[in-house]
Amino acid sequence: MTADFQSWAGHCQVSIETLLGSRLPASDVVPVRLHQAMRYAVLGGGKRVRPLLAFAAGELGQADSERVVVVAAAVELIHAYSLVHDDMPCMDNDVLRRGKPTCHVEFDEATALLTGDSLQTLAFELLSEKNLADDAATQLGMIKQLAGASGSRGMAGGQAFDLDNVGKMLALPELEFMHIHKTGALIRAAVMMGAQCSNYLSEAQLEKLDHFAKCVGLAFQVVDDLLDAEATTATLGKTAGKDAENNKPTYVSIMGIREARERAEKLQQDADQILSEFGDSALRLRQVTDFIIKRKF
Amino acid sequence: MTADFQSWAGHCQVSIETLLGSRLPASDVVPVRLHQAMRYAVLGGGKRVRPLLAFAAGELGQADSERVVVVAAAVELIHAYSLVHDDMPCMDNDVLRRGKPTCHVEFDEATALLTGDSLQTLAFELLSEKNLADDAATQLGMIKQLAGASGSRGMAGGQAFDLDNVGKMLALPELEFMHIHKTGALIRAAVMMGAQCSNYLSEAQLEKLDHFAKCVGLAFQVVDDLLDAEATTATLGKTAGKDAENNKPTYVSIMGIREARERAEKLQQDADQILSEFGDSALRLRQVTDFIIKRKF
Repeated sequence: MTADFQSWAGHCQVSIETLLGSRLPASDVVPVRLHQAMRYAVLGGGKRVRPLLAFAAGELGQADSERVVVVAAAVELIHAYSLVHDDMPCMDNDVLRRGKPTCHVEFDEATALLTGDSLQTLAFELLSEKNLADDAATQLGMIKQLAGASGSRGMAGGQAFDLDNVGKMLALPELEFMHIHKTGALIRAAVMMGAQCSNYLSEAQLEKLDHFAKCVGLAFQVVDDLLDAEATTATLGKTAGKDAENNKPTYVSIMGIREARERAEKLQQDADQILSEFGDSALRLRQVTDFIIKRKF
Repeated sequence: MTADFQSWAGHCQVSIETLLGSRLPASDVVPVRLHQAMRYAVLGGGKRVRPLLAFAAGELGQADSERVVVVAAAVELIHAYSLVHDDMPCMDNDVLRRGKPTCHVEFDEATALLTGDSLQTLAFELLSEKNLADDAATQLGMIKQLAGASGSRGMAGGQAFDLDNVGKMLALPELEFMHIHKTGALIRAAVMMGAQCSNYLSEAQLEKLDHFAKCVGLAFQVVDDLLDAEATTATLGKTAGKDAENNKPTYVSIMGIREARERAEKLQQDADQILSEFGDSALRLRQVTDFIIKRKF
């Protein structure tokens, strides 16, 4: 990770944190407990991978960063809601997230349920703000994209597929089906929505970008599986080794660590290949991709 | 309830059911269990009060019914998601809804959680469809309205306030604060969004309509409390008497049955007073209001 990228990413992370902090209701607004829990679940942690991708795609599309940060925040709110619900006892029953007790442990289950619900709503509320794209119709298209990526044919559908298959041995195509939905769809939405904050890119360029985003989404998940298998709870900030413990199918359980690592590298090559067609303006996307592949947490 | 109104309401109910049936993923689409649960939670039941209000407001605003039905469906999906989550063990822990086992009883808790999540997402997906208002900016405003009505400063916030106050004696202003959020906000959104499917009404007229919607929202809740106190589980299709059992503050527990009934009638008078300024075009709104006040379930 170059110093230049570190500084750019740090700037993005501060700007997304500031925006989220100002758009989440203050912790003294009634109902106080819910608003405290919403802030707890969103602020002060996380790699902000999806926002970084949105920012980098925004730079590719020469979009106004004041638009991109709102769109990035919306995507991050969807991600945060999914984590709160995913950690609940009826789902993964996890107690640790981003190095802190999970939302239902710190607060209670009912509050965690309403927190996830309200974070999802806030994502769509942010996206309905004025002037996030060059025209309102494009902005409606962005809302459609985020909804499609999040719902039963996107992220939530991937989670349901995951639940349906705990303890089963999946073949690689089924595993990829799951990940394309569970994490890939939202990552793809982050990239596409960031780019669409302006009308700078052509339809053909957007299609290439979408292909890039699919590669990155899968690579993200392969690395996630590798980290879960290899890392410790302390470095990860969430419970490590829980895939194996829960008998969940992963890239590692299906193809082993070495092949999974090779698969991640191949996906990075494919992604870089696509970006090479965009020249220098894809610098940040290349760097974020590299960060995603090489991260240790 | 006049035969004319019955026939109109029946037509609205068929049209909303048809639209929801076609927009909810089919029950053989993967993940099958999630899609079955989504259809189970939404189709084949419910009074569809919010859609009826949206249709009636759409008639007042001379809006195209093909637009209104989509907007009405979005509001109903938010309502349905809130019921699925509200019935879960960590919230009201209820087993009966619309005369059937609740979603987590019929399926399982994890599926119910994802079902509610996905129904909310689908609501916003429907609202991002093309051409639901005369211009895309108005449509973005409708999305903002639904999000504001549903989130932590609307419906979900009202639910959180409710949870925070179980077992406490509330004063009337606090009880109304709760209901204005928990049920009132979504009812108001249904009315306003139905009307805004066209630009026919002036700003001043929309303001009056909003005031009407606030009265109806409160009246709806007063009647709900009366029914919970007076009706049986069989006529209600959901567990009766659970407010008293859960020691929840209600209009009935605060002001008694007779005064609560008078309050509902006063709210209906206020609502009718506002509608009188709209003349004959408010016929359906008047009828739906009457239906809400006089319903027995």
